[in-house]
Amino acid sequence: MLTLYYTPNTCALASHLALAHATSDYALVRIDFKTNEQRSASYLKINPKGRVPALVTDRGILTETPALLQFIAQTFPAAGLAPLDDPFALARMNSFNSYLCSTVHVAHAHRMRGHRWADDPAALEAMRQKVPRAVGDAFALIENELLAGPWVLGDTFSVSDYYLLTLARWLEADGVDLSALPRVLDHRRRLLALPLVATVIAQEE
Amino acid sequence: MLTLYYTPNTCALASHLALAHATSDYALVRIDFKTNEQRSASYLKINPKGRVPALVTDRGILTETPALLQFIAQTFPAAGLAPLDDPFALARMNSFNSYLCSTVHVAHAHRMRGHRWADDPAALEAMRQKVPRAVGDAFALIENELLAGPWVLGDTFSVSDYYLLTLARWLEADGVDLSALPRVLDHRRRLLALPLVATVIAQEE
Repeated sequence: MLTLYYTPNTCALASHLALAHATSDYALVRIDFKTNEQRSASYLKINPKGRVPALVTDRGILTETPALLQFIAQTFPAAGLAPLDDPFALARMNSFNSYLCSTVHVAHAHRMRGHRWADDPAALEAMRQKVPRAVGDAFALIENELLAGPWVLGDTFSVSDYYLLTLARWLEADGVDLSALPRVLDHRRRLLALPLVATVIAQEE
Repeated sequence: MLTLYYTPNTCALASHLALAHATSDYALVRIDFKTNEQRSASYLKINPKGRVPALVTDRGILTETPALLQFIAQTFPAAGLAPLDDPFALARMNSFNSYLCSTVHVAHAHRMRGHRWADDPAALEAMRQKVPRAVGDAFALIENELLAGPWVLGDTFSVSDYYLLTLARWLEADGVDLSALPRVLDHRRRLLALPLVATVIAQEE
């Protein structure tokens, strides 16, 4: 059985949604950021990075959302969560997921996690001030270039849709100008209307 | 045929090495950062992100190093560049590659690309000052937790080895304390001693 370590309102939601889509045979363990549980000695044994998500499998522990998403899709191929038989289409999916992970999520993280990259409080404030533009520019590329429509990869739903929804839920808090992102918002609206998505989000919160 | 757009001394080296390992049937196009060619109208048609690498295939263009690396490994399975038949091992490989992309490379980027996340020159300087520690901490996790040895995944060589080498070449310029990274340095030394690696690096420079 798979066990997902998660925290509400983090990128772990993408893996949680993919798991819930693919199987009912998984367990959840909630990690509390408010008490800094992700840095506790017991959790650092699960994930020495001190982050969520972490996925415990019978062969070992996996981290990093793009890796978890493809692993879940490969473990439950009948769920149809990735174009597993087409290396080019799979690479497009992984390219999108990698962009979310290394550009979009990183731009977002400069709002509350700037201490990873600077110590000076004025620098952290300068980072916070640029978040609406940096995140907005990253989402503009999704809006105009990457989101094929109706789903991320086109007609085929995939884990990338759950991952995009997960990060698109942070747009308002990041202060992004939503008027430039009608297709992203429509995608988010359609995802949030899915019963599975509503159930998983309610369960997390 | 595949065509790789690259710039010397960037993360495109990882894909270049994987390609050169797997096949002789590829072309290279050099993009000149000194003239800001990555932001030229003609290159933005190849990659609207304005970055390298980009891989042109007969089905379309792919970007993002982790996606390119798995795609190259899947396109040339005889090269043995990834544990393609084992989803868990493949997820470990992708987890490592995702960590390099979203944590290690991002920490490094705060030395010269801080303008992505702040405008104030003092903030950019504060970012530069933290690079030795942020990159050093990220590599310490590789040293102590992620690099199984002798190769990244253990006994099996993979694209992750080329990707790690690529980023480990920046350690000195990032001001990282090398004394804490004997296993990373040994890995780098062994990679640099491979004739293929020496040839590709010489070709780029």
